[in-house]
Amino acid sequence: MLRKTALVTAGAMLLAGTALASGEEASDAEKAVKYRKAVFTAMGHNFGPMVAMMKGKVAWDGDEFATRAERVADLADMPWEGFVEGTADVGNSEAKAVVWEDTAKFEDLQSQLADRTAALAEAASGGAERQAVGQAFKKVGETCKSCHDDFKED
Amino acid sequence: MLRKTALVTAGAMLLAGTALASGEEASDAEKAVKYRKAVFTAMGHNFGPMVAMMKGKVAWDGDEFATRAERVADLADMPWEGFVEGTADVGNSEAKAVVWEDTAKFEDLQSQLADRTAALAEAASGGAERQAVGQAFKKVGETCKSCHDDFKED
Repeated sequence: MLRKTALVTAGAMLLAGTALASGEEASDAEKAVKYRKAVFTAMGHNFGPMVAMMKGKVAWDGDEFATRAERVADLADMPWEGFVEGTADVGNSEAKAVVWEDTAKFEDLQSQLADRTAALAEAASGGAERQAVGQAFKKVGETCKSCHDDFKED
Repeated sequence: MLRKTALVTAGAMLLAGTALASGEEASDAEKAVKYRKAVFTAMGHNFGPMVAMMKGKVAWDGDEFATRAERVADLADMPWEGFVEGTADVGNSEAKAVVWEDTAKFEDLQSQLADRTAALAEAASGGAERQAVGQAFKKVGETCKSCHDDFKED
């Protein structure tokens, strides 16, 4: 957590520093929004087939599920540095202003996502059957929903 | 590599299957393009500060370099399933048609990127000094360039 927080700060400072140096503040803010949305796009793309497998809409493939769970876990710490202050209304941002108001709760959910996606990747590792990953999968989905409910525009 | 190839095929089949089922072929093609571009956006966002550190434009931070190198390595296997056949001119794709014509070369470069980003993450692990990662970093940059030169529109 310390390391992540340090990196978020470093990332924010880097973006802010670049903005000040180049005089293209808006453009760097847009880049931050584009980045965080890109990571969520990558996360959703990999989570989608996991949902489909869990629901039995496509055939269960334990190896594919494991690979996608690993990817989601790898992506889970990446978007946060893109939540640079002052970017709530930049580009096609869907972040609510509360992201920068209740940072403690937002960071708690980031940690929860990291923990739960890591647990899911661990449970899925090596190609588990559906019932072996069900609980861990449900927990991840709950964290996604909690965060979207509070911090993302509908 | 086998696992990756299997997943690329599965991903392409899944996307194709979804397209056929929903009748929204264009939309699924657009999603594939959006996905692959999102992964490259995430990769570039993390690679950028590594370049700046290597060039001495920002202060060297071995821990941040290691985290970003790990992310780039994690992202390196993700975009390829988004290169679904027939999506060269979809959305704001920058892929050249040769992606689907010289698949052997394209897949060789995918493997090379996986190998070289993993080597860089390994070299950077734990927070190395600049000179300890220089060669591995250069190799990654060369692979990026090779692939962009041949397979990406200017």
